[in-house]
Amino acid sequence: MPRLRIALAQIESTVGDLEGNSAAIIEWTRRAADRGARLVVFPEMMLTGYPVEDLALRASFIDASIEALSATAARLADQGLGGVAVVTGYLGRHVGPPPRYGQPAEGALDAAALLHGGQVLVTSAKHHLPNYGVFDEYRYFLPGDRLPVFRLPCGEPGQAEPTVDVATAVCEDLWQEGGPVTVTRRAGAGLLVVPNASPYEREKADTRLELCQRRAREAGATLAYVNMMGGQDELVFDGDSIIVDAGGRLLARGPQFEEALVVADLDLPAAGPGALPVDVAADAHDGTTMTIHRVSVPVDPVAPGESAPATDSPGSGAGPVWPRLDPLAEVYAALVTGVRDYVRKNRFRSVILGLSGGIDSALTATIAADAIGPDPVHVVLMPSQHSSAHSVADAEDLVKRQGLHARTVPIRPAVDAFQADLQVEGVAAENLQARVRGVILMTLSNAEGHLVLTTGNKSEIATGYSTLYGDSAGGFAPIKDVPKTLVWDLARWRNEEAARRGQAPPIPENSILKPPSAELAPGQLDTDTLPDYAVLDAVLEDYVVEDMGAAELVAAGHDPALVDRVIAMVDHAEYKRRQYPPGPKITPRNFGRDRRLPITNRWAEPRRS
Amino acid sequence: MPRLRIALAQIESTVGDLEGNSAAIIEWTRRAADRGARLVVFPEMMLTGYPVEDLALRASFIDASIEALSATAARLADQGLGGVAVVTGYLGRHVGPPPRYGQPAEGALDAAALLHGGQVLVTSAKHHLPNYGVFDEYRYFLPGDRLPVFRLPCGEPGQAEPTVDVATAVCEDLWQEGGPVTVTRRAGAGLLVVPNASPYEREKADTRLELCQRRAREAGATLAYVNMMGGQDELVFDGDSIIVDAGGRLLARGPQFEEALVVADLDLPAAGPGALPVDVAADAHDGTTMTIHRVSVPVDPVAPGESAPATDSPGSGAGPVWPRLDPLAEVYAALVTGVRDYVRKNRFRSVILGLSGGIDSALTATIAADAIGPDPVHVVLMPSQHSSAHSVADAEDLVKRQGLHARTVPIRPAVDAFQADLQVEGVAAENLQARVRGVILMTLSNAEGHLVLTTGNKSEIATGYSTLYGDSAGGFAPIKDVPKTLVWDLARWRNEEAARRGQAPPIPENSILKPPSAELAPGQLDTDTLPDYAVLDAVLEDYVVEDMGAAELVAAGHDPALVDRVIAMVDHAEYKRRQYPPGPKITPRNFGRDRRLPITNRWAEPRRS
Repeated sequence: MPRLRIALAQIESTVGDLEGNSAAIIEWTRRAADRGARLVVFPEMMLTGYPVEDLALRASFIDASIEALSATAARLADQGLGGVAVVTGYLGRHVGPPPRYGQPAEGALDAAALLHGGQVLVTSAKHHLPNYGVFDEYRYFLPGDRLPVFRLPCGEPGQAEPTVDVATAVCEDLWQEGGPVTVTRRAGAGLLVVPNASPYEREKADTRLELCQRRAREAGATLAYVNMMGGQDELVFDGDSIIVDAGGRLLARGPQFEEALVVADLDLPAAGPGALPVDVAADAHDGTTMTIHRVSVPVDPVAPGESAPATDSPGSGAGPVWPRLDPLAEVYAALVTGVRDYVRKNRFRSVILGLSGGIDSALTATIAADAIGPDPVHVVLMPSQHSSAHSVADAEDLVKRQGLHARTVPIRPAVDAFQADLQVEGVAAENLQARVRGVILMTLSNAEGHLVLTTGNKSEIATGYSTLYGDSAGGFAPIKDVPKTLVWDLARWRNEEAARRGQAPPIPENSILKPPSAELAPGQLDTDTLPDYAVLDAVLEDYVVEDMGAAELVAAGHDPALVDRVIAMVDHAEYKRRQYPPGPKITPRNFGRDRRLPITNRWAEPRRS
Repeated sequence: MPRLRIALAQIESTVGDLEGNSAAIIEWTRRAADRGARLVVFPEMMLTGYPVEDLALRASFIDASIEALSATAARLADQGLGGVAVVTGYLGRHVGPPPRYGQPAEGALDAAALLHGGQVLVTSAKHHLPNYGVFDEYRYFLPGDRLPVFRLPCGEPGQAEPTVDVATAVCEDLWQEGGPVTVTRRAGAGLLVVPNASPYEREKADTRLELCQRRAREAGATLAYVNMMGGQDELVFDGDSIIVDAGGRLLARGPQFEEALVVADLDLPAAGPGALPVDVAADAHDGTTMTIHRVSVPVDPVAPGESAPATDSPGSGAGPVWPRLDPLAEVYAALVTGVRDYVRKNRFRSVILGLSGGIDSALTATIAADAIGPDPVHVVLMPSQHSSAHSVADAEDLVKRQGLHARTVPIRPAVDAFQADLQVEGVAAENLQARVRGVILMTLSNAEGHLVLTTGNKSEIATGYSTLYGDSAGGFAPIKDVPKTLVWDLARWRNEEAARRGQAPPIPENSILKPPSAELAPGQLDTDTLPDYAVLDAVLEDYVVEDMGAAELVAAGHDPALVDRVIAMVDHAEYKRRQYPPGPKITPRNFGRDRRLPITNRWAEPRRS
């Protein structure tokens, strides 16, 4: 069996930065060539970033992507990398009959291309378009109907034989029945490579590996899945690239939340010699017909040879297998990645946040310090007459543990100045305090250029237990999709992780242990207003993430009165969520693109218990 | 030719209020019966409101809609209205093979039903699903593939003859080639009724009438288009229902932005006697096959007879033709409707806004007073050391002209209290003033229960010439989609309209005439930061609404340096827009569901001039 050395480049891409993304393709192709790879695969839409949202409707952007693709192919050859076969995602355009009414008029494609010898040898496009959850791909893309299969020499440099046949699909094409996977089997390809931009979600099972195994068996081919890495607004891509053989055996696996080159030696069936058949139509078993389009990759006299074993990284077998993170480490890494990339890609140099002594702001500060280092993390202590002594002490303790920049700005003078005129009480007076804090943070942000981090958790945002323009003020909300009970779990995990590494725990134990309070009124506790968080989060999980109706919630065992109360709180808070800053999605349904409800909405779930 | 009296009920619906919407169907069916109508047609998704967004993914809500439909049919019969044929939109569920992967699992349908004699006689669903602009219908709905044709007796009560054949399509089915319109001709129906929820957009031409005329000719049938009326979050439905005959002649037309019953007598071809054919498959000429499904409406012994001529309303011909509003009146009515319905449907009793003496807040206050009356409109004058004398005078003048509730809260004490600690200058100090105003409005809102109206216009929002949590604070933004030049046009129009009605102009002339200023720094003018608004708005129209790239903008005649500057401002302000409150859409592309761009976005349009 011919042996092919493949490299999966699970790297970052920045939306709109065609120049930078192109440079990354060249840089990582060089690394792959240095490792002796004959084929390098980059993620979905690598050249443009993903998701580009309505940029996919703008002709100038599509044009620029297509030009950047050709320029990248040429630059690779100029730099002596033309002999490496490079598969990369980009934003393409449909050629052929015009889109039908209702299809996107610009005819954009979520495309993949094979670059070799300075040329774009063949292109294709995602066949199955996801249009649920955070995805709106029917808004942007036409479906592809071509399976490209390229015949790649993988013997000695300059030798035409042996060759292997490699097919390409894109992301969602793996998740749906029929289509490119089915047609890969029909085409007899030995390897199916799949660029992905598949966002992280907290998962109990290893869904992705199981999917790759199933599809490899269906395709009758080795399957190489390469996923993007890094944060883009509310999405985080986690890498975790996978290679399995045609029997479903795991051959290599990349790290989570790290850029990496996953290099593996694949033993693949030899492709036949001689001329290629012309384009062949094939039933895709999904109600459509696809065309198998074959091309030959020219023999290159200086194709790279093997330089070192592919398995010099951790793991064993054809390639390295990085260990999987445990469930809390995984979530924590997602949050750190989301913050780091939002800061970096939006060219902020520092962040600022309010530190209350409570667990939410403590965890947020810790994530920020882990993301960009402690030095650019500025915190503001903003005590009021209702702040307890431990609040300030716990906040100061955290500052000292982590070496953050801290200052104290008491809110009383500004609150009093407002109250002299407004003289409000109750919730209005509580919100006023929170808004004065919001103004202080935004003012320091404007004056000093910091990104304001918002410290609210998912349980608060769900129930509306937050003040619009107060604690909800900011540009990015790191724990927005983290329920309160998971906030505690993550804080404990982070401290334990420090202990495992022989470091001091970064989060004061008291911030983890004390009962949560907004401290906006004397002796106030969250439980004055909200149910116990363990009980609340269980209902929220079923209502928000699982989208159960009231009757289902009661049938699932939740207290009927509590169900009514929680549903009313969640539904009423929709207007606040619309104005909340973005934050990294870690659950199957976040507040953002994933859950779209009307503000004006009189639907009250019937309980029928 | 048989004559059928039809009534189009272009009425309001509230999202989620199944009980209230059902009651409206019964109430307006009674009015139609009183006018002698044999057939009443309600808007798309009348029973649930539109758009219901992710409520269409919730099984409990679909179940409730289907139950409410049956209950409505039964109640109509109970109240002696069973003899009227009622066509109404509702949220249905697909019956048949399960949805494919990628289709919405709950299988919701944007459905229409015929109610008669206490029964749901036949149902169908929208065949063409819009998935562009503000619409995401592939996310929610499965496409319908059935054209219902019902044979309706329209002679004397109790007589089986004559009858007419009536087909039903839904909204987008009119906008796309092929599908229900084509199949209506094949079925030989004499009348095609079309429930719609078609949002208002400022249009130069009378697109809708032309479309109805074209489709009536294609269907070879009289066409009755009934559109929803009223506001729902960022959308406003404008009514403007239309009936044209098979030759395209206008027979009746409803008012814009008013609930109304459009009653008309239609001369229609008689349907044949005898048994109906079974279901027939028909090529829909859009790549699909539809089924023509025929049902007979039973003869009702007490069907209503004609009670008065159908044309007692303005206009002439088979039914009334309300006059069309002129272009500015139309926009103004859309804004008033949007505000009124957001307030009412969200159960607010009053609004509050800051009044600066400038044109934006003056127009917003005037719209609010026109929407809900002057008494529930509370304004706050919040002068600073930079406020000019005319600012306060102009604001007070407007208050007096309109009889609003006004109070004055100077911002200096709070600003000074913040500055004592923060000591910021420049933009940070300007934003601080705006944010103190935001806090004052939100505090009064919390204390007194008013909805805060945001006064920013589209030009400001586009360029980011606004302060996050300052002038952008609020729950609803009436002129969010109104470019500054149109703000002035609307203000002038409103004053002229008052003059035409013999009333005093509500807006002080000085607010219209003076050069715009944020008054956050000494002698500040908008033109210190922004181009002249006439020039700016022209670029924004082409960049934001037309989605031109930089090269196209330059080719369209805009100054190249200005193009670069405006694009940079617009792109950079995306993060602010994400946190802006909703406001009524009046242009073909608003900031909201209509334009979805990443915040993290390094794409810089190449000018190439």
